[in-house]
Amino acid sequence: MAKQFSLLLSTVALSLCCIAFAFEPSPLQDFCVADASTSARVNGLACKTTASVQASDFLFSGLHMPADTKNPFGATVTPVTVTQLPGLNTLGIALARIDYAPKGVIVPHSHPRASEIITVLEGSLEVGFVTSNPENRHITKTLHKGDVFVFPIGLLHYQRNVGDGYAVSISGLSSQNPGVITATNAIFGSKPDITSDILAKSFQVDQSIVENLQGKF
Amino acid sequence: MAKQFSLLLSTVALSLCCIAFAFEPSPLQDFCVADASTSARVNGLACKTTASVQASDFLFSGLHMPADTKNPFGATVTPVTVTQLPGLNTLGIALARIDYAPKGVIVPHSHPRASEIITVLEGSLEVGFVTSNPENRHITKTLHKGDVFVFPIGLLHYQRNVGDGYAVSISGLSSQNPGVITATNAIFGSKPDITSDILAKSFQVDQSIVENLQGKF
Amino acid sequence: MAKQFSLLLSTVALSLCCIAFAFEPSPLQDFCVADASTSARVNGLACKTTASVQASDFLFSGLHMPADTKNPFGATVTPVTVTQLPGLNTLGIALARIDYAPKGVIVPHSHPRASEIITVLEGSLEVGFVTSNPENRHITKTLHKGDVFVFPIGLLHYQRNVGDGYAVSISGLSSQNPGVITATNAIFGSKPDITSDILAKSFQVDQSIVENLQGKF
Amino acid sequence: MAKQFSLLLSTVALSLCCIAFAFEPSPLQDFCVADASTSARVNGLACKTTASVQASDFLFSGLHMPADTKNPFGATVTPVTVTQLPGLNTLGIALARIDYAPKGVIVPHSHPRASEIITVLEGSLEVGFVTSNPENRHITKTLHKGDVFVFPIGLLHYQRNVGDGYAVSISGLSSQNPGVITATNAIFGSKPDITSDILAKSFQVDQSIVENLQGKF
Amino acid sequence: MAKQFSLLLSTVALSLCCIAFAFEPSPLQDFCVADASTSARVNGLACKTTASVQASDFLFSGLHMPADTKNPFGATVTPVTVTQLPGLNTLGIALARIDYAPKGVIVPHSHPRASEIITVLEGSLEVGFVTSNPENRHITKTLHKGDVFVFPIGLLHYQRNVGDGYAVSISGLSSQNPGVITATNAIFGSKPDITSDILAKSFQVDQSIVENLQGKF
Amino acid sequence: MAKQFSLLLSTVALSLCCIAFAFEPSPLQDFCVADASTSARVNGLACKTTASVQASDFLFSGLHMPADTKNPFGATVTPVTVTQLPGLNTLGIALARIDYAPKGVIVPHSHPRASEIITVLEGSLEVGFVTSNPENRHITKTLHKGDVFVFPIGLLHYQRNVGDGYAVSISGLSSQNPGVITATNAIFGSKPDITSDILAKSFQVDQSIVENLQGKF
Repeated sequence: MAKQFSLLLSTVALSLCCIAFAFEPSPLQDFCVADASTSARVNGLACKTTASVQASDFLFSGLHMPADTKNPFGATVTPVTVTQLPGLNTLGIALARIDYAPKGVIVPHSHPRASEIITVLEGSLEVGFVTSNPENRHITKTLHKGDVFVFPIGLLHYQRNVGDGYAVSISGLSSQNPGVITATNAIFGSKPDITSDILAKSFQVDQSIVENLQGKF
Repeated sequence: MAKQFSLLLSTVALSLCCIAFAFEPSPLQDFCVADASTSARVNGLACKTTASVQASDFLFSGLHMPADTKNPFGATVTPVTVTQLPGLNTLGIALARIDYAPKGVIVPHSHPRASEIITVLEGSLEVGFVTSNPENRHITKTLHKGDVFVFPIGLLHYQRNVGDGYAVSISGLSSQNPGVITATNAIFGSKPDITSDILAKSFQVDQSIVENLQGKF
Repeated sequence: MAKQFSLLLSTVALSLCCIAFAFEPSPLQDFCVADASTSARVNGLACKTTASVQASDFLFSGLHMPADTKNPFGATVTPVTVTQLPGLNTLGIALARIDYAPKGVIVPHSHPRASEIITVLEGSLEVGFVTSNPENRHITKTLHKGDVFVFPIGLLHYQRNVGDGYAVSISGLSSQNPGVITATNAIFGSKPDITSDILAKSFQVDQSIVENLQGKF
Repeated sequence: MAKQFSLLLSTVALSLCCIAFAFEPSPLQDFCVADASTSARVNGLACKTTASVQASDFLFSGLHMPADTKNPFGATVTPVTVTQLPGLNTLGIALARIDYAPKGVIVPHSHPRASEIITVLEGSLEVGFVTSNPENRHITKTLHKGDVFVFPIGLLHYQRNVGDGYAVSISGLSSQNPGVITATNAIFGSKPDITSDILAKSFQVDQSIVENLQGKF
Repeated sequence: MAKQFSLLLSTVALSLCCIAFAFEPSPLQDFCVADASTSARVNGLACKTTASVQASDFLFSGLHMPADTKNPFGATVTPVTVTQLPGLNTLGIALARIDYAPKGVIVPHSHPRASEIITVLEGSLEVGFVTSNPENRHITKTLHKGDVFVFPIGLLHYQRNVGDGYAVSISGLSSQNPGVITATNAIFGSKPDITSDILAKSFQVDQSIVENLQGKF
Repeated sequence: MAKQFSLLLSTVALSLCCIAFAFEPSPLQDFCVADASTSARVNGLACKTTASVQASDFLFSGLHMPADTKNPFGATVTPVTVTQLPGLNTLGIALARIDYAPKGVIVPHSHPRASEIITVLEGSLEVGFVTSNPENRHITKTLHKGDVFVFPIGLLHYQRNVGDGYAVSISGLSSQNPGVITATNAIFGSKPDITSDILAKSFQVDQSIVENLQGKF
């Protein structure tokens, strides 16, 4: 059961992200489409030869399709990063769609390499982010259709469907590969587990509570 | 008449842009909300004091509203950049909505400070971008609902509604202030005009044709 | 009691950070010492006039002093960022000392604006970081005196004293203002609290457990 | 005839650029000379092994030679970018010489990856650039021998020989590969052509005028 | 006498630099002309209001004038950086002219914030740069009229007139404010002096030799 | 004898550096461990496949060991850069330990790609840096145990043990590969030598003095 959750969560978490990240190295040519045929690895991805690049390298289809939200969190992300759209390589931008069942939650998470700008297409969302130590100020709003909000790079943030029906949002993220650090996955679902004693002390709870949580993620 | 067009075009051009730009200086604090009360000018914008920042500084409303497309081009951009959303300052991201009447066109333009990732919410769009000299390769696709496409930073690109009804798209742009250089505005609509002789030679046409175009923009 | 913990944690968390962060905008002059006398706010900090800069602006004293570790976590950070050392402004580097009582823990946290390189001066530390979704790979080592380890920018990481005595480490961080997001502070100790229902769903636990944790941080 | 023009224009356009572009990723080693022998493609170019680097990798010869200006525009650019000078790889700088016959014009163009600083060695030039929407402010000067002017990154700019004899200028550009987007080439000379209907609507002219222009470039 | 030399050298050293530096923070607006009227100091310079910007802010005149080379080194630099040309602020580029009397030398120096691309307008120059430790490889060439060479950012380099007559070169530098560290000025001419004992040990010479050199710069 | 010195100096110079450098291109993935098995060369280093990465790739051991200081300068650097610690690739940070015998000197040098933050673990150090032309201002302090000081990127700086016993310091540097330009090595120890006539003119001394120095390094 825990495994199933974990898999679901991984999927959710991956999509947690969103639309378009920034602050990346500038491109040094018109485009550098990611080359799926090479095993060479660099910061970012190696480029296809210019001659082999086609218009389809800049295209991704299907973002209008609602994702299945039948998972413990009731929300699913459909990311369009360099993984899905090779033409994004070196361009410092990505996109994501998020579907929310009623009461669905995008678990608190951060993007290590991107800021995120989100807009609500359908429904109403409670969103928020928390600033760093020592303030840990919680900045939160309820968003309605047509509202736009921004989550600064690296800060913990979350979304929740607070309407009666399904909700949909679109995000832009300032990186070709924003990355998603979901708090619960990273803390309780790492492979292998973090020593439970460390987490017990950190959360100021009994080790048994930690181990129970580790079983869930 | 020309003036009216020009004003309309300016408005259109401004919105030409889109969703979210990148490649900007990294932030050096959690956030730096643009301070409307100061006259101090720096690269980007000065920040409000942390204590005066409110959740509403990160919010923009109304992106679900279709814009009026009754202008010569039949298309209108609604930008959400740092000008509209002060919380975007230092965060390297922006968003835009574009409405297209049937046959509406977003005139060829470039963003000097951002790549753009676009997704079609409603309708069908013919889109394309052109690479730099000497190839000037034209990479084009017809996009349908749910399709996602990317325009690399600084390259000339355009969109046209090729469906029977209205079309809507959302873009992410990798800058807080992508900028829009509309070809016709910059070439024929600058204030003051570029010497018509220069443009006549550049376009290899009679000066009278240039002057006619300068009257339109 | 919770408040006291919270204050302690804030202090700890602040120091969680460390030594030296990077990936910041390059300097445009030899130095730009942060000016404490101005209320002007920019990305980073405004500079003192060159004439008023003194050698002491580049100096911080006291990093050899063990910090008091009598707090619930048994570990304390002494940061040397641009806040403590104004000469660091625009230079993309910081330093920190961490003291650990036996079994002391630096709670899982991330730096939104820096990578961290850590070296053990005294004692033995269990350290680790977790990669982003979907792998959430946990990379961990036990460090002894003279060992050096690196935590990549934005990833969750932690340290624990696993020796019998006190331990001391020094870190370099690649930013003048790395920022510290302590998982427990951000999730359960934000001001105001995140809606407990969101956290209950995220952690897949009863709301009462969440509220108990919120009381602690 | 159109083809011939097009080829000439391509050549001209390539040289349109100039001297030295910037805002690129910083180098991570003393030098990284572009390796002509590899097919590996990355952001920028792969490096030769350090041992195989020679002083000649940092040298380009012949910039004192006037270029042939017998083309429809009466001006020719001789670029020195990473294509001509492999030692420029990762260094964020380039150079160009431009020769102008009497009345010769460097067609309005932009550099997507560089600002340009230009100085007049011989003759007199009318130069200008146009800011982005909605202002489209035209900033222009007549330059004489020894004058220096700057064109900001991504903005449309042009030069024209307004003296009686030949003119010569040298430019520095802030990129190893500035790129040149010549307005006429990109709009009317792309391969394949942009749908003429789009351009007719954009320029507010008859389709026949567009098709005539497309035949020229 | 030493003072006089020192002043001359300072002037020379300042001009040592050149043409155009890079790797600076990207601009966040079309331009940000340096504002001479403000005392506010930031990374780079504060901007004039857009309304007060004029075409002359982008212009510098007089680079065709040979500089006086009657100084102990027989060479003089005329820099065009943001100090001389306020429109360069945020644009990552600069230019310089260097005049060399016969046998004139541009003393070994480095630019902490720029790479330099140099071209010879008149005469012949011996130029070279030295790589970092441990190789300290000396890469050198004799340049003739029309030759172009590049000095990577931060590396020690020099130029010498090896022709019979006067020589002239133009450089592009990848920064608005490249900075010049002249080896002799920094080591023997600092204010106040570096303790002579440190330099004696560094150069493995008697302290009296150091003190003699300190008297010269 | 000179060779021996030279080798020693190379070793010293390499370690001159320190702890952690910055201002590098941002990472585009969680990590990119340098791949020792490939001959492919890029800006920075190519990455190992994610699957082959191990915790030991992020670990370096032995920084607690005092280095042998029996060399003409009485000081030795132990660097921990990407060369020693492959996990540092793309992360913009490094570390170094420096050991100083009584009166030991770290010869004046600069880091072309990093700022340096230094803290004294044992002993007392005289340290300083010199600003660029024309000021050449010498900013200096005597540091005691627990003091922290910063050397801005690219500026000439030095350290000397002014206590009675051995001294030890730790530095953070804002680059994975800071580079070290030791003044004496670069000027008098390059391979091949810089023409002695150039150096004689630069230092305003007889050529014989230059040749004597060239024999030493």
